Amino acid sequence: MALDRPQCRSPIFIALLSLLWLVSESKYIAYNTTQRIVPDKLNVHIVAHTHDDVGWLKTVDQYYVGSNNSIQGACVQNVLDSLIPALLADKNRRFIYVEQAFFQRWWRQQSDAIKKTVKELLSSGQLEFINGGMCMHDEAAVHYIDMIDQTTLGHRFIKQEFGIIPRIGWQIDPFGHSAVQAYLLSAEVGFDALYFFRMDYQDKEKRKVLKNLEVVWRGSKSLGSSADVFAGIFPKNYEPPPGGFYFEVNDDSPVMQDDPLLFDYNVQERVNDFVAAAVSQANITRTNHIMFTMGTDFKYQYATSWFRQLDKFIHYVNKDGRVNALYSTPSIYTDAKYATKEAWPLKTEDFFPYADNPNAYWTGYFTSRPTLKGYVRMMSGYYLAARQLEFLRGRNSSALTSDSLADALAIAQHHDAVTGTEKQHVANDYAKRLSIGYSEAEKLVGTSLACLTESTTNSGCHNMTTTFEQCLLLNISYCPPSEVDLSHGKKLVVLVYNSLGWKRDDIIRIPVTGESVVHDSDGNEIESQLLPLADASVNLRSHHAKAYLGISLRSTPKYWLAFPVSIPPLGFNTYFVSSTKEKGSVSAVSTFYSSEESKSDNLEVGQGNLKLLYNADSGTLTHFLNRRSLVKAIMEQSYSYYAGDSGSGSDPQASGAYIFRPNGSFPINYEMKGSLSIVRGPILEEVHQQINPWIHQISRVYKGKEHVEVEFTVGPIPVDDGIGKEVVTKITTGMMTNKTFYTDSNGRDFIKRVRDYRSEWELQVNQPVAGNYYPINLGIYMQDDSTEFSVLVDRSVGGSSILDGQIELMLHRRLLHDDDRGVGEALNETVCVNNECAGLTVHGKFYFRMDPLGEGSKWRRTFGQEIYSPLLLAFSSQDDGNWSSSHVAKFSAMDPSYSLPDNVALVTLQALEDGNVLLRLAHLYEVGEDKDLSAMAYVELKKIFPGKKFNNIVEMNLSANQEKSTMEKKRLKWPVEGSGVETIARGGPVDPSKLVVELAPMEIRTFLIKFDYISFANIGDR
Amino acid sequence: MALDRPQCRSPIFIALLSLLWLVSESKYIAYNTTQRIVPDKLNVHIVAHTHDDVGWLKTVDQYYVGSNNSIQGACVQNVLDSLIPALLADKNRRFIYVEQAFFQRWWRQQSDAIKKTVKELLSSGQLEFINGGMCMHDEAAVHYIDMIDQTTLGHRFIKQEFGIIPRIGWQIDPFGHSAVQAYLLSAEVGFDALYFFRMDYQDKEKRKVLKNLEVVWRGSKSLGSSADVFAGIFPKNYEPPPGGFYFEVNDDSPVMQDDPLLFDYNVQERVNDFVAAAVSQANITRTNHIMFTMGTDFKYQYATSWFRQLDKFIHYVNKDGRVNALYSTPSIYTDAKYATKEAWPLKTEDFFPYADNPNAYWTGYFTSRPTLKGYVRMMSGYYLAARQLEFLRGRNSSALTSDSLADALAIAQHHDAVTGTEKQHVANDYAKRLSIGYSEAEKLVGTSLACLTESTTNSGCHNMTTTFEQCLLLNISYCPPSEVDLSHGKKLVVLVYNSLGWKRDDIIRIPVTGESVVHDSDGNEIESQLLPLADASVNLRSHHAKAYLGISLRSTPKYWLAFPVSIPPLGFNTYFVSSTKEKGSVSAVSTFYSSEESKSDNLEVGQGNLKLLYNADSGTLTHFLNRRSLVKAIMEQSYSYYAGDSGSGSDPQASGAYIFRPNGSFPINYEMKGSLSIVRGPILEEVHQQINPWIHQISRVYKGKEHVEVEFTVGPIPVDDGIGKEVVTKITTGMMTNKTFYTDSNGRDFIKRVRDYRSEWELQVNQPVAGNYYPINLGIYMQDDSTEFSVLVDRSVGGSSILDGQIELMLHRRLLHDDDRGVGEALNETVCVNNECAGLTVHGKFYFRMDPLGEGSKWRRTFGQEIYSPLLLAFSSQDDGNWSSSHVAKFSAMDPSYSLPDNVALVTLQALEDGNVLLRLAHLYEVGEDKDLSAMAYVELKKIFPGKKFNNIVEMNLSANQEKSTMEKKRLKWPVEGSGVETIARGGPVDPSKLVVELAPMEIRTFLIKFDYISFANIGDR
Repeated sequence: MALDRPQCRSPIFIALLSLLWLVSESKYIAYNTTQRIVPDKLNVHIVAHTHDDVGWLKTVDQYYVGSNNSIQGACVQNVLDSLIPALLADKNRRFIYVEQAFFQRWWRQQSDAIKKTVKELLSSGQLEFINGGMCMHDEAAVHYIDMIDQTTLGHRFIKQEFGIIPRIGWQIDPFGHSAVQAYLLSAEVGFDALYFFRMDYQDKEKRKVLKNLEVVWRGSKSLGSSADVFAGIFPKNYEPPPGGFYFEVNDDSPVMQDDPLLFDYNVQERVNDFVAAAVSQANITRTNHIMFTMGTDFKYQYATSWFRQLDKFIHYVNKDGRVNALYSTPSIYTDAKYATKEAWPLKTEDFFPYADNPNAYWTGYFTSRPTLKGYVRMMSGYYLAARQLEFLRGRNSSALTSDSLADALAIAQHHDAVTGTEKQHVANDYAKRLSIGYSEAEKLVGTSLACLTESTTNSGCHNMTTTFEQCLLLNISYCPPSEVDLSHGKKLVVLVYNSLGWKRDDIIRIPVTGESVVHDSDGNEIESQLLPLADASVNLRSHHAKAYLGISLRSTPKYWLAFPVSIPPLGFNTYFVSSTKEKGSVSAVSTFYSSEESKSDNLEVGQGNLKLLYNADSGTLTHFLNRRSLVKAIMEQSYSYYAGDSGSGSDPQASGAYIFRPNGSFPINYEMKGSLSIVRGPILEEVHQQINPWIHQISRVYKGKEHVEVEFTVGPIPVDDGIGKEVVTKITTGMMTNKTFYTDSNGRDFIKRVRDYRSEWELQVNQPVAGNYYPINLGIYMQDDSTEFSVLVDRSVGGSSILDGQIELMLHRRLLHDDDRGVGEALNETVCVNNECAGLTVHGKFYFRMDPLGEGSKWRRTFGQEIYSPLLLAFSSQDDGNWSSSHVAKFSAMDPSYSLPDNVALVTLQALEDGNVLLRLAHLYEVGEDKDLSAMAYVELKKIFPGKKFNNIVEMNLSANQEKSTMEKKRLKWPVEGSGVETIARGGPVDPSKLVVELAPMEIRTFLIKFDYISFANIGDR
Repeated sequence: MALDRPQCRSPIFIALLSLLWLVSESKYIAYNTTQRIVPDKLNVHIVAHTHDDVGWLKTVDQYYVGSNNSIQGACVQNVLDSLIPALLADKNRRFIYVEQAFFQRWWRQQSDAIKKTVKELLSSGQLEFINGGMCMHDEAAVHYIDMIDQTTLGHRFIKQEFGIIPRIGWQIDPFGHSAVQAYLLSAEVGFDALYFFRMDYQDKEKRKVLKNLEVVWRGSKSLGSSADVFAGIFPKNYEPPPGGFYFEVNDDSPVMQDDPLLFDYNVQERVNDFVAAAVSQANITRTNHIMFTMGTDFKYQYATSWFRQLDKFIHYVNKDGRVNALYSTPSIYTDAKYATKEAWPLKTEDFFPYADNPNAYWTGYFTSRPTLKGYVRMMSGYYLAARQLEFLRGRNSSALTSDSLADALAIAQHHDAVTGTEKQHVANDYAKRLSIGYSEAEKLVGTSLACLTESTTNSGCHNMTTTFEQCLLLNISYCPPSEVDLSHGKKLVVLVYNSLGWKRDDIIRIPVTGESVVHDSDGNEIESQLLPLADASVNLRSHHAKAYLGISLRSTPKYWLAFPVSIPPLGFNTYFVSSTKEKGSVSAVSTFYSSEESKSDNLEVGQGNLKLLYNADSGTLTHFLNRRSLVKAIMEQSYSYYAGDSGSGSDPQASGAYIFRPNGSFPINYEMKGSLSIVRGPILEEVHQQINPWIHQISRVYKGKEHVEVEFTVGPIPVDDGIGKEVVTKITTGMMTNKTFYTDSNGRDFIKRVRDYRSEWELQVNQPVAGNYYPINLGIYMQDDSTEFSVLVDRSVGGSSILDGQIELMLHRRLLHDDDRGVGEALNETVCVNNECAGLTVHGKFYFRMDPLGEGSKWRRTFGQEIYSPLLLAFSSQDDGNWSSSHVAKFSAMDPSYSLPDNVALVTLQALEDGNVLLRLAHLYEVGEDKDLSAMAYVELKKIFPGKKFNNIVEMNLSANQEKSTMEKKRLKWPVEGSGVETIARGGPVDPSKLVVELAPMEIRTFLIKFDYISFANIGDR
């Protein structure tokens, strides 16, 4: 009635009329989310994702189940549970999942119905696995073998369970990016692209201007374009674009309110926000495709809260029409980029160091938690050996396996694990997992070795009588099986396993309680040397045995017994230690000099080619001499510390777990010069130096070796003065190195570093020390006209060459302030006994050597492998009888005549659950690295596996989830701006009859081999 | 192999073995949640619920869509969305939903598929509606008619959409509980039980000891056991029991970790926690049934996060076996309680006031936001009238309806709405909704009145030429249609509608611009009186017109024109105002005295039976006299304020929106005595008093009335001294009232209050003022041997009798501290003009009267209805001609000979969408309240609806969602401890031929009537 009368239509009335009209509209809205790519529009690829740290502020299990939420509200189970109905609700919705450690936990718990649904979602592409390793591994403090292993673990699970092969690398959080990640863990894995965001802020600004955030990354000099990968760097981070697009439950971004019956209708404002964000990003991006990463840490706990909003954005933004919004994934985005046929800028080398602010170089974490880093590296080498022995004995899934250690190691590669950037309780959790994994692997190794020694039983080792013990804590001279009393004729049996593919001659040492004599497996007595335990070692031993084992040690072994061993490739040899009372001969007891007894100014150390000269007065190293190579160099070694910035200045950036921000460098004087003592003997000589009350080191020169081994003990770092300290050792030579040095990339390629310089932009130097630090996993070296000086490490550390001719390694850090990158704790590690806590002590080794120019790489490569894969010692005992008559005392899995070429390492030998054998061979040299060894290498598989019948052999991609040839066919080849012609060497296909594997420099080749059957009994008995 | 050798089984090895065994166990666990009640065990009823405030810290729409999350993370859409898959995942899971304002928002947006699913969940009982009103209304500051209306709105939606009738009252958050809630809004609605938790802490402690937390509550003296309801009081609150059982996303209660492959397995600990919580609660509860309320405010945003844990608890607790845990609902719990045949303690009266701490009486909110309370009450009365007119005109769903006002009013009854305990922006939202609702209803009323006046057109009012305007802001003397210039012969047509069922004679007043004369609809000139606008009114008018309409008023009306009107029941009469220039006669212009002109000591005010005496010196009231009843009493009236405690003392409890905690009482001196002025005239006399610069009042004595009307203007309350103030007026008599006074329950029953005393326990008095405050919606009275003194109010206020013979009302509060009950704002309301803000001014009325003992109730009841339902004025104008010849000028919907009995009110007359007419009749007197009127009343429906053919009439329960007879048959009758025999009067069934409704004291009877057809054209034309 009144409605019909125009004169009634006051403004309010009109408003009410429209309200009435809207009432009929305000029903269920079916959002149109079907949009796909539109060629002539700006395409906004909405990538719904969650970033789930495999441990950080909480442990991996706490994150999974959502416990300990008072620390951080995070529950991955919620994410995966809630995802399923959210994806089912609209088949256009897509989601990517990354971290398999979490996915596997979840998968195990699901009903068959849910599993079926998930498989459908995966097969339709609504759910896509991206990256696909167990974790999103770090790229600085990790070894390439660990990267491969953890990726393989995830990839093979995905392949086996779902038949799926992840296509995209997704390293969106690690704190800098390595060349090895690009060429090896991306290209060689078969990834079509790699996405991340963390790079130097100066570099990023320049790239934004030039639209160079998306590049082709050529990480390998040796493999060149054959290992290119498209790399997409996010403009800001891996979160939604600026403008309020966070939609987790309780997030406070404005939700799109599109119900006209409710107040605060805001569709147009929100569409405008979206378009503005898109245009802004398009302005720094090539092509008409941009990606909105819609998610962040532990989000999508209620997935619908995001998808509800994303649906609306897609619906209304596309109605608006200015830009084209679509549900996408990194794969779809990558294909869209590729389809544009754009040529991309070329990026070589890597993205280290990473700074997000002028005073915030993320180079502290290269060293943070050095003992965890050491533990991880030690376990990595052990896992390699354990898998070999698992294979050699024959994998038996119902028995002990190395799986638990594999899992613990995989998780430990996470970018908040081995990095040291997790909370203390989480670091403890990683260590606990490694310990449990080791414990199982140790038993596996013990029984495998027992089985391999009991050659007479062909029964499948079901009735073994031999048992072997191992000594995880040999590093603190704690080894109960070797500390036995041999006075009553008992013999200590020392089995030494060599996991390298080469014969290995080395010196081993074990703690013993008395004077001893050593025989080899042929019954010949061999030279040995007894060395006194340093006081520092005795203290370490008792303190840590109490702290970690809860044991109060009653007795202390009297000596280290050192003796040479010679072990065949992929095999073992056995040695016998007995009391000297029973035999006529004795080990050489080392003689002992203190510096004060010295008459001359110089002390010379070393019985072989290598000599070190020390100044008797100062107690310091002065020269390095090699009689064979005729290198003679002045050389000093010292300790100093950087004071960790407390963040109390105008830029409140503290030095912390992530960030190295020194506030002054302070030399650590050799306060206790008088303590220098020298241990001499026929096999090795040691220089013991107590530098100050909390730094002790032993420098060792072996008669048969040309490098120096330094065993350092640093800690507890005193912080009573309220100042955190970051302790470095510096080795100073007289070399003219022109700011240049070389550091490895994840233990593999060496990359040239130039101090205060970046090849791709004009560096503004704000942090002259922290900004020149690089991660070191294998080693660091420098060169001058005639020599090269190399330092190799036993774990990840940070290092640099801050002065020409000098190399420094950061060995330990103890800090009192949080550096505000989320961990919320100061990096202040302690060790407690009976609730009395002291700062953590780190005990490790580094090695150095000077060579004529061009000759260093052989040592770095060969000895680098030995550091990674130390000899594995297993102990048994025998009361009487002849061990060798009842046991296999010496063994090689390989043909006795065979050894791997010097430039090839056996990276993986593993019996898989499915009966296949996984083999990886790695060429150890880059193109041009060594005049002899940077050549094509040839490996004869038949000689690695003598007596085995090859049923099938397939070359795989690096993570062994697809055939190499298929991968090569599928993988996108990205055009590069102004790219020229290059020749790249690659090994050819393996002839199944010859079974010889060719390896070009830096190639790693992966094979799945099916033998007719695998039984230890048929392998390499001899 | 080694597994077979017992000697290998070290403790660690055994642990590993068990781990291996667990691997095979660690699959999908199908939790057994099928458990039902077990007779011989302690049954723990797990009630999964969310408590969703219909506005509080955020507006109702913000809560629904989850916007403004920076204030509070809350999104009801998440709750309801996530609930569906969670319930579908396990058919044993149950959930209750309460607030229909949210549910309806959600329901509207759902697809047919979801709607179908929800209907199935409701029909299976997995989802149950509890309470079922639009909101969980307050019980202190609400009027019973609003409580009924908002409950009906929710209940009828549920009935119509789902065919479901809620069984359970669930008032788990309101701040004290009223007798009307118990007997009327629970028993008469048909609820079998009512659950809540807020009661005086002293009372609760005593009840815990006596296991008296569950009772039969008999809220009505008049209806006695016929309106009993079982009342369950939660031991602590409506949240999970103590012990860590909160499972919202990111909550930090320990989740039950039952995956043996993950660390921190804690099943037994959590089962123990649950059993301990159950036993603890069982110790204070009768029978073997206890309820765990698993939820709290806005929880279940991701419902699965709760159900996942609840599933586990039920599974493992029942495996444990000590107690029996089951998914339940309040209905199941109630039936289980009933099945025990236990007799329960009896509770009468109510649960006011509520204190949760010795210094925390929740009695401030009785007055908080007095203008919002006034607005709500005004709209409530208007809505009642609008619905009548909607019915009389004929409901037309395509046209304007009162639905929007219904919705706004319903939401405003929420226990954080009319209570004043919401944030300011939310209070604004409620007001905005009321304004929009009013705006639509105003047009409905205008067109309905136009239609009813245009009797000559039988066309269904499609071509009306008459328009009516109304004046919402008459209270600030702003009424554009009456302020017109009548000098050129124009006549102002004033239509006066009476929504009461009785003929009504009253005085109305309108602002006019000049001297005027008034004629009635028969053309007779009637007496009128012009009164000057007080300065205070002029200021109020211009300030608030600017503040709320954005209008700068140019002119001010010169007078109030007052004249008597006489309106038939449920009808209207029309009056005509014209300029005196055209006619010979004039209104009486009031004479004006200031107190200073007075010669005598006493000033007498009043032309009729009632006289007020004022002392000319002090300007204060001294006596109240009634010539008819011969009551003569000394009487003073004054203002004072309580200083609001700032919470800075040892008990940090501030006075705030919820809590009244005075820190001293301070008289407000009558600073401006000289300002007293008296307006005299033939119809009424007024005493104007400017008490101080921010308190003004006008006391009115009408010639034909025997009560005093006080119009007060209080504010802006000054707080420059840093002290919040709570302003009261006190009326002091010489009556000996023996600590006793009476306050109404939601405007219905009166309940006896005794100062510093509770009938059910020995009160420890901590707050002698705040602890004696009660909510007042209708009035408060006190008695002595011979007289009774009554005060009636126009809105909810707090009041008390702190001294014998004295009554006080709290009129306004302005406070500077938050009282820490969640709102997070100080109650400091302001009004802003051009960004200049001043404290809020409240402008309202109260009424008082002294009667001989036993005669007060007639006034309280009859005049109480008039306050609630003021005459509705509508304005038109006529240039010339005879209005009455072309219009219906006087109208009653009822038979001209008929009027409702004096003791009956028409509470609802409403045309429903489904064509039914909803009629509610209420007996206004309690048993024994009045010697004449507390009797059975009889209403002749045929005379209310003359000329209508009754097709069908069905008596319904109060909320009109079921037939009364069915409800009575179903409703549980609860045994009461030591209960005797009582006789209760109830009206009998309605004989369909006679159609006479009997109403016993305090009965409200609800009918659905189907007329043959409804058309305004056939209704009561005359």
